[in-house]
Amino acid sequence: MNLTHIEHLGIAVKSIEAAIPYYENVLGLKCYAIEEVPEQKVKTAFFKIGQTKIELLESTDPEGPVGKFIEKKGEGVHHVAFAVEGLQETLNLVAEKGVNLIDKQPRKGAEGLNIAFLHPKSTFGVLTELCEDPKK
Amino acid sequence: MNLTHIEHLGIAVKSIEAAIPYYENVLGLKCYAIEEVPEQKVKTAFFKIGQTKIELLESTDPEGPVGKFIEKKGEGVHHVAFAVEGLQETLNLVAEKGVNLIDKQPRKGAEGLNIAFLHPKSTFGVLTELCEDPKK
Repeated sequence: MNLTHIEHLGIAVKSIEAAIPYYENVLGLKCYAIEEVPEQKVKTAFFKIGQTKIELLESTDPEGPVGKFIEKKGEGVHHVAFAVEGLQETLNLVAEKGVNLIDKQPRKGAEGLNIAFLHPKSTFGVLTELCEDPKK
Repeated sequence: MNLTHIEHLGIAVKSIEAAIPYYENVLGLKCYAIEEVPEQKVKTAFFKIGQTKIELLESTDPEGPVGKFIEKKGEGVHHVAFAVEGLQETLNLVAEKGVNLIDKQPRKGAEGLNIAFLHPKSTFGVLTELCEDPKK
């Protein structure tokens, strides 16, 4: 598999409005976008540090995946996203190796990326996203 | 604060021996070092992807911080470490802004870095490490 870098970290927070001042004023990062992703029932805030984005995730519905995550584990890192070249081939390869896929086919994620998730039961507890930039 | 990139992700696993084949054979990363850190009661395995290291953490004692983390939350991302220039000044600045520090002074971490942890109660749930490379 050709993983190039960590594309982003998804971090579950109760309120992005409450968390943004910490990321901006303490860590010194700049929130460059806020985006709502209705199909994931989240509102997201984006920051960039080096090669990696930080994506704060606030649930817009307690029954959504991030709402359930916070209820179970509290605020914290929700998923790790790796940048990959050739997403569909990668998914096929990963499935052949016995990894349980949440998405068998790539779908559209935030910022126009093609994305797919691997199940944390197959990845030693880390909900793992693979992202491909279709413009590259 | 001058954060340059994500230095590493600390990922808690029950067994690094069990997890290494996933990181190597599925994700295609290479384990380049295994190190025991007795004061943290962990055994660690290191991988590199882009600017960032992945540090698998296996507890050598159920009462150690990683052992307790796994008992409470299961396997998964344990901490996020940012590379910073000027660690002591940064800690002073962060404390002035009201962040609760686990380490008020830098201490030695893995790979010869100077490190300090911020308390997750002040960082919206993410156990946060700041790292400075004394050779830079």
